[in-house]
Amino acid sequence: RINGERLWDSLMEMAKIGPGVAGGNNRQTVTDEDGEGRALFQRWCEEAGCSMGLDQMGNMFARREGTDPDALPVYVGSHLDTQPTGGKYDGVLGVLGGLEIIRTLNDLGIKTKHPIVVTNWTNEEGTRFAPAMLSSGVFAGMHTQDWAYAREDAEGKSFGDELQRIGWRGEEEVGARKMHAFFELHIEQGPILEAEGKDIGVVTHGQGLSWTQVTVTGKESHTGSTPMPMRKNAGLAMARILEKVDEIAWSHKPHAVGAAGHIDVYPNSRNVIPGKAVFTVDFRSPDLSVIQDMEARLRTEAQAIVGDMGLEVEFEKVGGFDPVEFDAGCVAAVRSAAERLGYSHRDLISGAGHDACWINRVAPTAMVMCPCVDGLSHNEAEEISPDWARAGADVLFHAVVETAEI
Amino acid sequence: RINGERLWDSLMEMAKIGPGVAGGNNRQTVTDEDGEGRALFQRWCEEAGCSMGLDQMGNMFARREGTDPDALPVYVGSHLDTQPTGGKYDGVLGVLGGLEIIRTLNDLGIKTKHPIVVTNWTNEEGTRFAPAMLSSGVFAGMHTQDWAYAREDAEGKSFGDELQRIGWRGEEEVGARKMHAFFELHIEQGPILEAEGKDIGVVTHGQGLSWTQVTVTGKESHTGSTPMPMRKNAGLAMARILEKVDEIAWSHKPHAVGAAGHIDVYPNSRNVIPGKAVFTVDFRSPDLSVIQDMEARLRTEAQAIVGDMGLEVEFEKVGGFDPVEFDAGCVAAVRSAAERLGYSHRDLISGAGHDACWINRVAPTAMVMCPCVDGLSHNEAEEISPDWARAGADVLFHAVVETAEI
Ligand SMILES: NC(=O)NCCC(=O)O
Ligand SMILES: NC(=O)NCCC(=O)O
Repeated sequence: RINGERLWDSLMEMAKIGPGVAGGNNRQTVTDEDGEGRALFQRWCEEAGCSMGLDQMGNMFARREGTDPDALPVYVGSHLDTQPTGGKYDGVLGVLGGLEIIRTLNDLGIKTKHPIVVTNWTNEEGTRFAPAMLSSGVFAGMHTQDWAYAREDAEGKSFGDELQRIGWRGEEEVGARKMHAFFELHIEQGPILEAEGKDIGVVTHGQGLSWTQVTVTGKESHTGSTPMPMRKNAGLAMARILEKVDEIAWSHKPHAVGAAGHIDVYPNSRNVIPGKAVFTVDFRSPDLSVIQDMEARLRTEAQAIVGDMGLEVEFEKVGGFDPVEFDAGCVAAVRSAAERLGYSHRDLISGAGHDACWINRVAPTAMVMCPCVDGLSHNEAEEISPDWARAGADVLFHAVVETAEI
Repeated sequence: RINGERLWDSLMEMAKIGPGVAGGNNRQTVTDEDGEGRALFQRWCEEAGCSMGLDQMGNMFARREGTDPDALPVYVGSHLDTQPTGGKYDGVLGVLGGLEIIRTLNDLGIKTKHPIVVTNWTNEEGTRFAPAMLSSGVFAGMHTQDWAYAREDAEGKSFGDELQRIGWRGEEEVGARKMHAFFELHIEQGPILEAEGKDIGVVTHGQGLSWTQVTVTGKESHTGSTPMPMRKNAGLAMARILEKVDEIAWSHKPHAVGAAGHIDVYPNSRNVIPGKAVFTVDFRSPDLSVIQDMEARLRTEAQAIVGDMGLEVEFEKVGGFDPVEFDAGCVAAVRSAAERLGYSHRDLISGAGHDACWINRVAPTAMVMCPCVDGLSHNEAEEISPDWARAGADVLFHAVVETAEI
C-alpha cells in the first residue's frame, strides 16, 4: 500500500504554489507559477532517484528504470496546471499519485520489469490556450506542434513563446516515446461516486467533447440615443443563443450537457450596445451522434436568431474529441486492483476530458477515479478526503505494478 | 460666423491623440492620452489669450475676460474623453466649438460684457469609471468628491489616484464657480436630424437614465462532469435576464430603451460553468415613471429567474439621473440663433446623457445638436460633415454671444 500521509503532504505542498483567492489554486499553464510547480515536481522525482525527460511541448517524464532493458515503460500521470480558480486535486492528484508509486516502490525495494515513467502533461486545462489536453494531443499525433505553438491566450501571447519564456521547452521530439501502457488517476469531478458511497471509479469510457467558438457581429452604438428598432445588439443575440444551448443539451437526456463558460462582449462599455460577442459553447455526450446533432443544431439555431435580428454569426471549432473507450486489459487491471484491495467500486464514464483520452489512441490506457465532495471541480472549493486520495493511489499503484510486472 | 475650416482642423488634430483601431479614438478618461489631449487644448486656449483654471476633479476652465467685472461668466463646453472605441466628435465638438467661439471673437475684436469660459469636464463617458458625467456631477453637487475619487476601474485603480498620476488634479474647489449660463454643443448620437434633413437640434429635454449593476451568483463547476440538473449556471441566468431587459424596454414604446453594454462572467474559462455574472443594465426614458417601472420590473423579473434556478442576485444602482428640462431662456436663445442664421431646426429630446444635464441643476442651461451619419455614435465609425459642425458651432456662437452680451 502507498503512504497516504506522504501523498497528502505533497498535495498540500504543491498547492502552496500559485495559490488562489479562496483556498484553491491559480497555477495556469506556462505561467511563472507553473514553472515553479514543475521545478518542485522535478526535485521530488530526482530525490526519488528518477531521471527527468522534457519534450518540446514541455511534457515531463520522470523515469524509474526497470530490470528488462527491452521492456517498454508503463506510464502514469496527469497534469499540474490548474484552472484560474481551480482546485488543489484536479490533475495534481494523478501526477503526485504517480510519484507516490515510485516512492513506495523505493520504500519496499521493489524493482519492476518495465520501467515506470511519471508524466506531467502541459496545458491540460485549456483555459489560457484552447484546446484542453493540448500537449498530450500533440504527443498522440492529434495536433501538429506548430499549430500548438501558435495557440494564443487572451493577451495574444503564444503558447510556444510562453513555454520558452518559463524555461520548460525541452529538446526531445514529441510523441517519440513508445508506451507499454498508460494509467491516469483523477478525481471524478462529478457526483456519482460520493452519492453511491463508492471508493473507486473504474473508468471504462470518456464522453466526447465539442467546443465551438461563436462570434456574433452586430453594430456598436449608443445605449441611450439609438432607437430600439435600429439596434443590432450582439449581446442580446448571444443571450438568445445561450438559452438555445441549454435547451439543446436538455433535449438529449440523461447524459448530454451544454454551457458556455467563456463570454466576452465588445467594447464592454456600459453605454455601448455590444457590437460583437464572442463565446465558446461546450457540448458533451458519450454518444458521438448526439454531439454531432448538438453542434449542428447550435449552428442552425444561432443562424436563425441572428438572421431575425439582422446580425451575423461565425463559428470556429476550437476543441473537441470523440467519445473514448479505454483499453479492456488496462480497465480490467484497475478493476481487479480495486477488488483485491477491498475497495468498493463501480464502472464510470468520465464526464471530463483527460490526457488519458488522447494517450488511449497510441497506447493501452485506463483511468482510476476517486470521489470529490459534492462532485465539485473547476472551483477553488474542490475537496477530497485523504482517505479517498489514498484509495485511488493504492489502486493506481497495484494496477501499474501489475502491468509493469515484478 | 465662426471659421468652419479652423474648427475642423482642430477636430482632426485632436483626433490624432489616442487613435482607435478603426479610424476613431480611444482616449479614455484620466489615461496618458487624456493628459495629452488636455495639454493640447490648454495650449490652444492660451494661444487664444485665455487663462486656464483647473479644479480638484480635473475640470478645465479657459477664461476670456469680459468688460463688466461684476458679470458672471457664460460657460460653454463638453468633454474631451472618449469611449474605448469611440468617435472623433462625441464631446470633442462641444469643447473645440467653445474654443472656436473665443477664436472668432478674437478675430472680430469683439469684447463681451460677461466673461466666456470654455470647459472640459472630466470623465463624461463613464466607461472606465462609472457613472458617466462624473465630474460635472460633483460640480453640480450630485456626488461628493470623496465618493468620486474612490470610483474604481476594472483593474481596481481609483479615479482620484489616476487623476493625480496624469498630473491634472487641480487645487480649485469643485463647484465654487457661479455661472450666468451654460451651453453645450454635441452631436445628436441619434438618427432624427439626419432623417429629417435638419441642420440643428434645439434640445429642450434630456431623457433620464438608470444604470443597475446586476450580480448573479451561481456555482462554478465543471462543464463536462456536472450533470445538467446540478448546475447553477450564472451565465444562463444572465442570458434570461438580458432577454427580459429587452422585453421591458419594448413594452414602453416608442421612447424607452434598454440594453446591457457591460458583461463579465467569472472565471471566464471555457470549461467552467460561470459561477458569477456581472452586467450593467442601462434603461432610459424621457418619463421618470417609466424609468422607475423598468427598474422595478428588472428586479422582480431577475429575482424570479434566479429563484427558479436556485441562484442569487444582487442589484446596485451605479448611475442615473432624472429626465431634464432645460432652461426656457437658454433654449430660446439657441432656437432664435438657428432661426436668425437661417438653419433648419427642430426641437429634440436628448437620448444620451450630457454634462449639461447636471449643470442645468445649478445654472440656466441649454444644448445645441448637429446631425451625425446614420445616428451612429459610441462607434469608431461615428461621422459628421464639416458643414454640420460649422452650423452647430455658428448657432452655439450666436447663443453664447447673445447671452454674454456685447
Ligand atoms: N479534467 C479536466 O478538467 N480536464 C479539462 C478538460 C475538460 O474540459 O474536460
Ligand atoms: N453623450 C454621451 O455619450 N454621454 C455618455 C453618457 C451616456 O451614456 O449617455
